[in-house]
Amino acid sequence: MADLPEPLERLVARLLRLPGIGRRGAQRIAFHLAGAPAGDVRALAEAIAALPEALAPCTVCGNLAGADLCPVCADTRRDRSVLCVVELAENLAAVERTAAYRGVYHVLGGAISPLRGIGPGDLAIEPLLARLAAGEVREVIVATNPTVEGEATAHYLARLIVPSGIRVTRPATGLPVGGELEFIDQATLARALEGRQGFD
Amino acid sequence: MADLPEPLERLVARLLRLPGIGRRGAQRIAFHLAGAPAGDVRALAEAIAALPEALAPCTVCGNLAGADLCPVCADTRRDRSVLCVVELAENLAAVERTAAYRGVYHVLGGAISPLRGIGPGDLAIEPLLARLAAGEVREVIVATNPTVEGEATAHYLARLIVPSGIRVTRPATGLPVGGELEFIDQATLARALEGRQGFD
Repeated sequence: MADLPEPLERLVARLLRLPGIGRRGAQRIAFHLAGAPAGDVRALAEAIAALPEALAPCTVCGNLAGADLCPVCADTRRDRSVLCVVELAENLAAVERTAAYRGVYHVLGGAISPLRGIGPGDLAIEPLLARLAAGEVREVIVATNPTVEGEATAHYLARLIVPSGIRVTRPATGLPVGGELEFIDQATLARALEGRQGFD
Repeated sequence: MADLPEPLERLVARLLRLPGIGRRGAQRIAFHLAGAPAGDVRALAEAIAALPEALAPCTVCGNLAGADLCPVCADTRRDRSVLCVVELAENLAAVERTAAYRGVYHVLGGAISPLRGIGPGDLAIEPLLARLAAGEVREVIVATNPTVEGEATAHYLARLIVPSGIRVTRPATGLPVGGELEFIDQATLARALEGRQGFD
């Protein structure tokens, strides 16, 4: 097979580094851009090039922000008595998409992981404790991922925060909505049974 | 749900115009880029921004090219007695990926489509006939898409070329390799039966 023209190959190689894009998808996008109006192509390039300078962590919660405060922290209607702790900004976006949460957030920047050499000092835990010390927060929902590392991080935080009298909770583990029992992994099913709830 | 920070929203909106990328994929890429090294982000932006100026149609076959000639036309080992006609450069790339074709190409720029107002004059048919008139080509494989428009275009080209004594062929229509009869559409199955071949 002859190679693609060099400018296309270079773009394909770059696109392949993005999550969720394989060779076929990268080529499809490259050909699409090769035939797209120059103005559209440049607008995409500029939107990408602008990111490193345009985005900075929110000075309050660590979420990605285009200004000093992220859209959540800038929104005066959010309930500042409930604070949801997440590992990364994309996890925050996932919670936001539910439209079921009206509190604020704190982004840790990851989870404690001895295997990867990430300790509590590498995460935004001190800033979290400082926010809690201000006295406005009554409940902390620790929504780290339901992985070994996320669970360990949640327990670590709970040990730190519970003594201060602030309520610490964790999202329920259980069956996915619309799931079928036979397709659900054993660990999740076991946790769902363990956490079974009465019809009230 | 709070919006994403403006620079991310702008990028997501741009990514959504690309083929094969939905909202979830666009957000995933945007978050990935938000956390990626600035150098990588700029390299991607530059690879995209370079396209409009770096790419031009090959002056011989119309394939996308980074120079005067596309990689195929520049390759002296290709068999110039066989010419494969395709609708678009991405179709050419698909044939190249098979690694089963060693001839050269001609890109029409689309297919005849009265519904979309595309007539023969809008396609690179004159340049094709000029190439054939040079006398080097002995077979033209018309590999337009197996759609109504692609078939119509193939018949149109065959009518023009056959009288000149050049052999005109079309790729076989039939069962996909690895396919199962029950999942193959009726039209394809009918064509496959019609074109059945003996065990020789």
